[in-house]
Amino acid sequence: MSSHRKLRYGMIGGGRGAFIGGVHRIAAIMDGQAVLTAGAFSSDAARSKASGEDLFLDPSRVYGSYQEMAAAEAKMPADQRLDFIVIVTPNHQHFPPAKLFLEAGFNVVCDKPVTFNLAEAKKLAAVVKKSKKVFVLTHNYTGNAMVKQARELVQAGALGEIRKVVAEYPQGWLSTLLEKTGQKQAGWRTDPKRSGAAGCIGDIGTHAENLARYITGLHIDTLCADLTTFVKGRALDDDGNILVRFKGGAKGIIHASQISVGEENALNIRVYGTKAGLEWHQEHPNQLLVKYPDKPTEIWGRGNGYVGKAAGAVTRTPSGHPEGYLEAFGNIYKEAFRAIRAEVSGEPIPADVDFPTITDGVEGMAFIETVVKSSKAGAKWVKFPKV
Amino acid sequence: MSSHRKLRYGMIGGGRGAFIGGVHRIAAIMDGQAVLTAGAFSSDAARSKASGEDLFLDPSRVYGSYQEMAAAEAKMPADQRLDFIVIVTPNHQHFPPAKLFLEAGFNVVCDKPVTFNLAEAKKLAAVVKKSKKVFVLTHNYTGNAMVKQARELVQAGALGEIRKVVAEYPQGWLSTLLEKTGQKQAGWRTDPKRSGAAGCIGDIGTHAENLARYITGLHIDTLCADLTTFVKGRALDDDGNILVRFKGGAKGIIHASQISVGEENALNIRVYGTKAGLEWHQEHPNQLLVKYPDKPTEIWGRGNGYVGKAAGAVTRTPSGHPEGYLEAFGNIYKEAFRAIRAEVSGEPIPADVDFPTITDGVEGMAFIETVVKSSKAGAKWVKFPKV
Amino acid sequence: MSSHRKLRYGMIGGGRGAFIGGVHRIAAIMDGQAVLTAGAFSSDAARSKASGEDLFLDPSRVYGSYQEMAAAEAKMPADQRLDFIVIVTPNHQHFPPAKLFLEAGFNVVCDKPVTFNLAEAKKLAAVVKKSKKVFVLTHNYTGNAMVKQARELVQAGALGEIRKVVAEYPQGWLSTLLEKTGQKQAGWRTDPKRSGAAGCIGDIGTHAENLARYITGLHIDTLCADLTTFVKGRALDDDGNILVRFKGGAKGIIHASQISVGEENALNIRVYGTKAGLEWHQEHPNQLLVKYPDKPTEIWGRGNGYVGKAAGAVTRTPSGHPEGYLEAFGNIYKEAFRAIRAEVSGEPIPADVDFPTITDGVEGMAFIETVVKSSKAGAKWVKFPKV
Amino acid sequence: MSSHRKLRYGMIGGGRGAFIGGVHRIAAIMDGQAVLTAGAFSSDAARSKASGEDLFLDPSRVYGSYQEMAAAEAKMPADQRLDFIVIVTPNHQHFPPAKLFLEAGFNVVCDKPVTFNLAEAKKLAAVVKKSKKVFVLTHNYTGNAMVKQARELVQAGALGEIRKVVAEYPQGWLSTLLEKTGQKQAGWRTDPKRSGAAGCIGDIGTHAENLARYITGLHIDTLCADLTTFVKGRALDDDGNILVRFKGGAKGIIHASQISVGEENALNIRVYGTKAGLEWHQEHPNQLLVKYPDKPTEIWGRGNGYVGKAAGAVTRTPSGHPEGYLEAFGNIYKEAFRAIRAEVSGEPIPADVDFPTITDGVEGMAFIETVVKSSKAGAKWVKFPKV
Repeated sequence: MSSHRKLRYGMIGGGRGAFIGGVHRIAAIMDGQAVLTAGAFSSDAARSKASGEDLFLDPSRVYGSYQEMAAAEAKMPADQRLDFIVIVTPNHQHFPPAKLFLEAGFNVVCDKPVTFNLAEAKKLAAVVKKSKKVFVLTHNYTGNAMVKQARELVQAGALGEIRKVVAEYPQGWLSTLLEKTGQKQAGWRTDPKRSGAAGCIGDIGTHAENLARYITGLHIDTLCADLTTFVKGRALDDDGNILVRFKGGAKGIIHASQISVGEENALNIRVYGTKAGLEWHQEHPNQLLVKYPDKPTEIWGRGNGYVGKAAGAVTRTPSGHPEGYLEAFGNIYKEAFRAIRAEVSGEPIPADVDFPTITDGVEGMAFIETVVKSSKAGAKWVKFPKV
Repeated sequence: MSSHRKLRYGMIGGGRGAFIGGVHRIAAIMDGQAVLTAGAFSSDAARSKASGEDLFLDPSRVYGSYQEMAAAEAKMPADQRLDFIVIVTPNHQHFPPAKLFLEAGFNVVCDKPVTFNLAEAKKLAAVVKKSKKVFVLTHNYTGNAMVKQARELVQAGALGEIRKVVAEYPQGWLSTLLEKTGQKQAGWRTDPKRSGAAGCIGDIGTHAENLARYITGLHIDTLCADLTTFVKGRALDDDGNILVRFKGGAKGIIHASQISVGEENALNIRVYGTKAGLEWHQEHPNQLLVKYPDKPTEIWGRGNGYVGKAAGAVTRTPSGHPEGYLEAFGNIYKEAFRAIRAEVSGEPIPADVDFPTITDGVEGMAFIETVVKSSKAGAKWVKFPKV
Repeated sequence: MSSHRKLRYGMIGGGRGAFIGGVHRIAAIMDGQAVLTAGAFSSDAARSKASGEDLFLDPSRVYGSYQEMAAAEAKMPADQRLDFIVIVTPNHQHFPPAKLFLEAGFNVVCDKPVTFNLAEAKKLAAVVKKSKKVFVLTHNYTGNAMVKQARELVQAGALGEIRKVVAEYPQGWLSTLLEKTGQKQAGWRTDPKRSGAAGCIGDIGTHAENLARYITGLHIDTLCADLTTFVKGRALDDDGNILVRFKGGAKGIIHASQISVGEENALNIRVYGTKAGLEWHQEHPNQLLVKYPDKPTEIWGRGNGYVGKAAGAVTRTPSGHPEGYLEAFGNIYKEAFRAIRAEVSGEPIPADVDFPTITDGVEGMAFIETVVKSSKAGAKWVKFPKV
Repeated sequence: MSSHRKLRYGMIGGGRGAFIGGVHRIAAIMDGQAVLTAGAFSSDAARSKASGEDLFLDPSRVYGSYQEMAAAEAKMPADQRLDFIVIVTPNHQHFPPAKLFLEAGFNVVCDKPVTFNLAEAKKLAAVVKKSKKVFVLTHNYTGNAMVKQARELVQAGALGEIRKVVAEYPQGWLSTLLEKTGQKQAGWRTDPKRSGAAGCIGDIGTHAENLARYITGLHIDTLCADLTTFVKGRALDDDGNILVRFKGGAKGIIHASQISVGEENALNIRVYGTKAGLEWHQEHPNQLLVKYPDKPTEIWGRGNGYVGKAAGAVTRTPSGHPEGYLEAFGNIYKEAFRAIRAEVSGEPIPADVDFPTITDGVEGMAFIETVVKSSKAGAKWVKFPKV
């Protein structure tokens, strides 16, 4: 069937009081390509209903559980059928609905980290493969235009051979025992039963790793991680410093923190090659610094004529009209929609679609597990597993 | 009738190749509160149809002219009737559709500057008043959270008495005769028949004036403007430097330029009072600098707990997750929707809605005309008219 | 006689409690080329003696007045004779000692503005000419390496034809009636008998004008100045906004303020030409932004191999080792010493010495007087006089 | 004897073509407190003579070797005797002259790292102790006013308990095999016989460690270092990434690099405590960021009334008049002179003098050796030795 219409989607999680669900909803619709049509916004049926009402949904398509939703939505006629499902629950609730909906024939967009642990991620990879559906993992920061520009410069050889990568992600919001105050976001992120084996590293360290990999194309060979739980009474790490050796000889540092008091969301990356270096700051995402040994540092600005194809393709506003977090998130959807529209129309997925996949998810989970393993062993060097 | 549903809107202008129409479409829908339902996207009927198709519209509600649209849409039943109209045509095509739709009983959102000239603006003010409909002018930069914070600080007396304002808006994109290359945006903006009496000043100088007024609450008493057309063959000003004396004794500088080569969209403002000063940069809109005589300069960051109510009310993402141009634009809509929903439901407009109105539009047109008058007189001081 | 030795200098003014005298002393000696040998540091003989003792001077060469000093020092034998005199008194005390020492055969370095008024400046120009001595005016900001780089880029045509200049110099330290608290620096600067016809404009506005002229080579044709005294009880302007039309057609804005609360010493300049633009901030002087219509903005860093000859010649430390206010001040001396050593040795002054001269001083005084004239006439456009 | 006169000093090393010697000469004299009087500028006697002539020295006090100089200068009468010696030779030539001059009764200022290896440093500590002379180590970056402010804030408890420190020092100038081109600075720094066991880590990593220790007062307990030599043909490390565990529980990252292409001299530090965080950038040294969990980030500016005593004591110019690398270097001398003047006058050294000492030198050498040991062992965790 033709996909020249707004895509219909349903959401799992993201009810009242959630954070990332609202972000996904903005990101999914900003380009007028999709419409929220159904949802199981909470495992509390009343809360789910109320959230559906907030969102102007037809009550008949608001469910008390994702299982109920899967059962009902699978029966919808073609002209009402959901084109994709968005999963925005805490980590431990990624795998079950993802598997269920993929197997029911729906395309799936899932928040990161992809699953609760590496074993689940591998299982999900098999499910995705078998399903032949589109699976999108929202490592949203790679949606930034200037991140794509950075990647394009690396791929074009502008940096020469990469030697060093410094990726960091300091925040300060968990510098006290916020999870004990009833703050919902802090609650599940610091709970090993919902978050997984890592706290800070799973929540944000994995973004730093993903960003480094996306830009440089480098894969970790071994790492040495020193995780710390600074806040007494907390169950998971709230800070982590990691030395990295990439395959091929580049070295790196990845550090993340949620106790770096006063920091907001300072995901930053620097990459140095033999010919040039790069620097990008998530909080000022419209600029990319390019540094040279023998000429002035350049400030590349999003939206200018000189930026490359990849960045140009995800540009909504002219240079100087700053795009931000939501637009970058929307870019993941923008690319995902190209794949989903193809899938829905029974056409081949375009070869050049650019969004994080289950493969990225598996590598991300392997990163988390390797970091935790290293740290638990006393911050020893540990080989990155084959994934 | 209840307005607990997505608001339906129609658009005038904004077809293929347009810039600001696309911005409005994103801004209008990003919070999931509205849906584009109809449009007359171009005075070229085929182009309008094609644009409607791009936007997944029902072809029956895509029109070849705004007149046709007004006639047809006025007859729609309540459950399909448009709740508001968005006008995104060049300046000379603001007044006619605005008047038509207001008189036909529709709420109207209109791009700036509000009309082709001051006389039209005054007429439109009368139309708005008589219509009792909501009229929203998208001076979008005042939608920025930290601009609202700046205003709140001024209103709370944190700056003391305002002494000096420096508002500037340099761009560089018109540093050559771009309008002769077929570039559509350059074409109408430099054409006196479509843009009005001013070029750069009407297009962006008026944003600077509006921003200064919004933050400080000050109104211009007299001004002295030196406009220049640097690019040979251009019909309107592409640069303007203006000395300003505000009512009450504050002094100011407003300057705007489209030949400041290498500048992207550098709308910046500094305000100095007896107690403190402010500085805000549109290209880095999530920060607001607050300066004091006797303590460290502060960087206020959007989304933090310490920001005030006005900024907090338009915050979608946490601190460090940058919002940008589109979110600020969306904030104008966010506030407008509060008024439009009230109007649609027959309820009183909330007293605290915060968006630019026809009054701002009239003052903006008075600014443009006064600047042009001053400059034509040889950059003499001219009294700002009563509006 | 050979000048291959440290140059000996005497200072007029700059005793205990002074500001700029200490700056000159550091700037003069930092390169090990000069030694303070004599001084009349205050018109209060005891204070002068005490200051001389602070500075480890031979008491026999510390004087109670500059007249006494001139009389005594003129008789010194060649091997003890001062090579130059540094005048760092308030403005009204520049001309008398400058004239006296020049006529007594000494080279003179004088702080800015060069004299109390334009008439004196013109007289001094005649004295300098007749004396055949070296006269140096310390418009110190032009000593910055990256300012020299900016000038070199303009001279090389990298900017094309200059269209617009924005030079600004906001400070906040005089936002209250500081002069009534006994603060010495505020005292004389706000006193018409010591400072001259202008306050803020004479003290710092003239730096902005000089910087713009140095970088661009442009001379003002007409200007329109709106000076204000915001602080009640103050005798001179503490803020000024000036529209400028340069000879040749470029336009400009020069503004200066001492009531821009929270600003420290924010001398900034932006220059836009047909091909490129420049931006430099005195508070971060090691960087120069160069902006283009069609390629990334460049950050030129002092001390790098790609910087030009002029900047390279005044570079003491490698890139990344920031030079500041004192080094820039020292660069004026560095260039001055090339001239003074030539003069002392009876050799011709090198053609390429680069420091502000009496000509700059006269133009600066003309600027001050024209600005005051314009403002007093109600902020009218006034023709810049021939100087 | 009284020290109310300029102090006389002699220099070892720093002849033509040297870098740091010139820096020391400016730093030593900028406040008019000292005068270069003698020197052995090179082990090449002719070069030493030529350098002395460049510096306007009396040829009789310019020597062909430091041994010769020590012998001759020790015999000088009191009124000509050197008050201190400055050693600016490559690392392997620190210990011999330091020992010789200390034992000959001279105060000594020595460039960092203090010696060729830890064993020498310990020996030198014994020599210093026995000599009762002043020994100053020029870890110059701790001379920055805002670094002192940072330390004062930590000491005052403004940060609470320190949790995390990130100190980094990337440069790019050795990203190629520069040492093989005859570049003198690259030559000795990459030569194990002159530089010691480490390259990049000894040259600049030790500055980062010293800075972290100075500001926080924390001492390293264990570390894990991964050093790399990226440039083929180079004998020493040109990059190093180090995980650190401080005594008391804080964690840290120290990384330094000379192959981070495009970086100039980016020594930066961030410190996070339970109450607040700090950030300082050497390339913009006049600002210190102070970050809080619940209020705006503050930009503390050097020279303002609100800065503390320590920063105030080393301030030469008002706020907004940037001080840089040389002034910070001069501040080490400024404090050293307080000690040296006391020593020369036979008075007790003031208790509050603030400059790096032999103790810092020993700890710095221990850092270098521990880092090298860790890296050679395969980047294993190694206990910091007792020093």
